[in-house]
Amino acid sequence: MTDVEVLSDAAVLIDGDRIAWVGSRAEAPRGGANVVEIDGVLFPGFIDCHTHGVFGAPRLDDQERRALGVDYKAIAAAGGGILQSVRDVRGMSEAQLEALTRSRLETLIAHGATTIEVKSGYGLELDAELKQLRVIRRLSEQLPATLIPTFLGAHEVPPEYRNNRADYVQLVCEEMLPAVARESLARCCDVFCEPGVFTVAESRQILTAARRHGFAVKLHADELEGSGGAELAVELGALSADHLAAISDSGIRALAASTTVAVLLPATMIFLGKRSQAPARRLIDAGAAVALATDFNPGTSPTVSLPLVMTLGVSQLGLRHAEVVTAVTINAAAALGLAADRGQIAAGCVADLIAVAVDDWREVAYWMGKDVVSAVWTAGSACPA
Amino acid sequence: MTDVEVLSDAAVLIDGDRIAWVGSRAEAPRGGANVVEIDGVLFPGFIDCHTHGVFGAPRLDDQERRALGVDYKAIAAAGGGILQSVRDVRGMSEAQLEALTRSRLETLIAHGATTIEVKSGYGLELDAELKQLRVIRRLSEQLPATLIPTFLGAHEVPPEYRNNRADYVQLVCEEMLPAVARESLARCCDVFCEPGVFTVAESRQILTAARRHGFAVKLHADELEGSGGAELAVELGALSADHLAAISDSGIRALAASTTVAVLLPATMIFLGKRSQAPARRLIDAGAAVALATDFNPGTSPTVSLPLVMTLGVSQLGLRHAEVVTAVTINAAAALGLAADRGQIAAGCVADLIAVAVDDWREVAYWMGKDVVSAVWTAGSACPA
Repeated sequence: MTDVEVLSDAAVLIDGDRIAWVGSRAEAPRGGANVVEIDGVLFPGFIDCHTHGVFGAPRLDDQERRALGVDYKAIAAAGGGILQSVRDVRGMSEAQLEALTRSRLETLIAHGATTIEVKSGYGLELDAELKQLRVIRRLSEQLPATLIPTFLGAHEVPPEYRNNRADYVQLVCEEMLPAVARESLARCCDVFCEPGVFTVAESRQILTAARRHGFAVKLHADELEGSGGAELAVELGALSADHLAAISDSGIRALAASTTVAVLLPATMIFLGKRSQAPARRLIDAGAAVALATDFNPGTSPTVSLPLVMTLGVSQLGLRHAEVVTAVTINAAAALGLAADRGQIAAGCVADLIAVAVDDWREVAYWMGKDVVSAVWTAGSACPA
Repeated sequence: MTDVEVLSDAAVLIDGDRIAWVGSRAEAPRGGANVVEIDGVLFPGFIDCHTHGVFGAPRLDDQERRALGVDYKAIAAAGGGILQSVRDVRGMSEAQLEALTRSRLETLIAHGATTIEVKSGYGLELDAELKQLRVIRRLSEQLPATLIPTFLGAHEVPPEYRNNRADYVQLVCEEMLPAVARESLARCCDVFCEPGVFTVAESRQILTAARRHGFAVKLHADELEGSGGAELAVELGALSADHLAAISDSGIRALAASTTVAVLLPATMIFLGKRSQAPARRLIDAGAAVALATDFNPGTSPTVSLPLVMTLGVSQLGLRHAEVVTAVTINAAAALGLAADRGQIAAGCVADLIAVAVDDWREVAYWMGKDVVSAVWTAGSACPA
């Protein structure tokens, strides 16, 4: 993860939506149609591999209640938590939701994310889950970024199934997954595996069904309590196990011996007011692949900036500057099961590039709270500023 | 601190550099020369009451070394730490330093800070301290913000005095303070009171001398180890005691019974990778006045955004949304000893205002890493975007 090559006085040649050539400016082929001089550092477009970007209102009351020490059960009892966003999404028209989501994803893009995973999971009923996924599909046609849709029907047990959880799991497996597959509305399926949400057994049941329908699988695992989520992710050949603040030693060993990527979300722990973080250094030292993401969502991480997450990656997770670059580029691509043709500036790769207005490339993970991204190109075209 | 009044459909009338009238839009006096419609929320300009804004290079190596577990003594031995910035500032021309500082303070202003305290303290010799303070004076004439200069000659013991600390304290008291006073280059004097830096006795000696020269006094107190810094600040009638992550119970009681403001710097603790924060809730509940600031500096807090600090104030310090607004407005003004004519939108106050592009005012402390400030006015005039 420290194998990051830095070129000075470099040039990149783009042909259509691909990078055609990279090398020293002095040796660059002449005659390009549009020459753009970059003042700063050019990075591969960043890849945000974990967001819940389709939602209604910010959960401001939750933020303040949590600050005052109210626990998540009391927050839920007061009408907050995930179920607040579920009521919100269920009650909105597809057009309303699309407008809100467009403007928010544009903000993520402006902060350097050129590929963004977006999960459903605030519907928790067939129609509302499909509504979220259709919003993602339509925006993926309109926005200048690659959106990777993930079905997260098992984000929480909805209130109407509180007393018959098994029926909800069955609904997810037998109605939602087939419907999402039929319309090809998602590439991945994710489950929130955590004591009090979905158990390891329920998560296994849902993700096994998802694989049968051709979905790649991912897992919210070991966020607040270790429950064997990381081990389950490895058992199922998941693309990623995400959160992991409470991962066990055996979970670390399992990930290290697998191709499942550990996706860490340090901004979430900060926004939740937690005093701990996932054991990033131990994961890397053991041999696991680590990616970083915003976890952009209205309740626990209204974080729009991968550069801020990279700063937290160094300062809170103990990663090196080179490691946080790998974590939001090639490792994040792996966490989404994408081909090796993105997350790098190399001939043949997708021409997703961002200019960062700094002198030293490491400053991308340094100036806390500053929007250092000065320009974004996706598939070879400049994005509106 | 929760006494924040929110007006809807409001109007503000500005006359020259002052606010002339505030009230409902429907009742607003007609006939203003320049009418500006604000889409979003208008706040009083924020006040950043603790920065070390005059410096040379970012300390990127320190950030990574700390991430890898290297302690501050080993970082200093490797050429990092405060003394790296001291070598840097000593070696730079006043013009170089001015250009770097201008661009950085412009970034702070763009993020909503219309009054900014700026400390010296990377000179640690008479000429270099004066050089920093002259840069602040010149920029205060050029930049569209109020800069409050603070002399921090006692930021660290410089290498040439390591074996005769008493002589450095004497130099600060008998040469530096009189020289700074003679040229009226600073309003306040600050000392870094911490085991290993300046003792309580040394800090008392320096700040007592500072008061004789007419400076208001402030104190870096109880940042990493409690050493009675807060108690000393109260004893000396300091405007503020800053940091306080390791404040004692008696320090909390002392601040609560005083007019000394507790200035908390949550971004610093995050950037340092610490797992603790100052006991903000206990301070407020005891009756202390709490302010928040960026601590903007190249080693431990390259943080440019008061809105991000406000987000950390809620999520990491456990403050309410209204409290973090108070903490960067009227309480921050008090921490700088400023008159009550800033930090509020009220008739007679300085017309320092910022527009924040959100629907609900609480969102200013919510969207992590987003630059929500869309426009800034100081002394009644619009600042360049």
